[in-house]
Amino acid sequence: MQPRISLITLGVADLERAIRFYRDGLGFPMSGASVAGEVAFFRTGGVALALYPRHLLAHDANLAPEGTGFGGIALAHNVRAKEEVDDVISQAVAAGGRLLKAARQADWGGYSGYFADPDGHPWEVAWNPFFPFAADGTLQLPP
Amino acid sequence: MQPRISLITLGVADLERAIRFYRDGLGFPMSGASVAGEVAFFRTGGVALALYPRHLLAHDANLAPEGTGFGGIALAHNVRAKEEVDDVISQAVAAGGRLLKAARQADWGGYSGYFADPDGHPWEVAWNPFFPFAADGTLQLPP
Repeated sequence: MQPRISLITLGVADLERAIRFYRDGLGFPMSGASVAGEVAFFRTGGVALALYPRHLLAHDANLAPEGTGFGGIALAHNVRAKEEVDDVISQAVAAGGRLLKAARQADWGGYSGYFADPDGHPWEVAWNPFFPFAADGTLQLPP
Repeated sequence: MQPRISLITLGVADLERAIRFYRDGLGFPMSGASVAGEVAFFRTGGVALALYPRHLLAHDANLAPEGTGFGGIALAHNVRAKEEVDDVISQAVAAGGRLLKAARQADWGGYSGYFADPDGHPWEVAWNPFFPFAADGTLQLPP
């Protein structure tokens, strides 16, 4: 698998409130791939990944470190070919990840599954025929 | 603020275990900016941001939706000039975000603060003089 985080999904309690925050408040450009009332996509630039002790991260953010259950965020790794989805999930599980959901046809027309990293952070591995790739591997969401 | 997620930090319980997973298991290239025993950075490609109802996201990942407290992930928005940090935090708070930590000198030599989005997802806003920017706004971590 290429070192790439293709998509960050934030779980939100009120989609319209969250859209107002990101689109209107922060000025993020919302993509035409968004589906009103269901899901919103934003075009953002590149990203780096860091690992840092959880309790220090909480401390840095001035948050209490306690937290249980679903954290409300999933990372996604998108692949160019449907056949790669199972390979990446297998690689992650072999590396110490945990299978959350075996890959399957998704009702949105793609093929995807989930694994959790050793700390439980969920990653979706997805083939999405509606999201083309740029030459550099980033997703090319429509404007 | 530009629509950019500069850095994703995963809070981990065992840093060495997490490094083994990402570096050795998944093959992510670890950056020389990493500090042994303290923090690890990986060079990854671009990212998109999506909003999706939290309970549906949990369901999609085959996870129970319950979860309280710190979720173990922080997003970061890095800026080119120290002066921009307070501006971005102010903009976020004005847009409905919550101030978690007023910006201050960081012991790693930069200047940063935190806000939470309306769902509580923490964002660091940081000026880091050691992480240069690419022309496209992504961080240029050393190889």
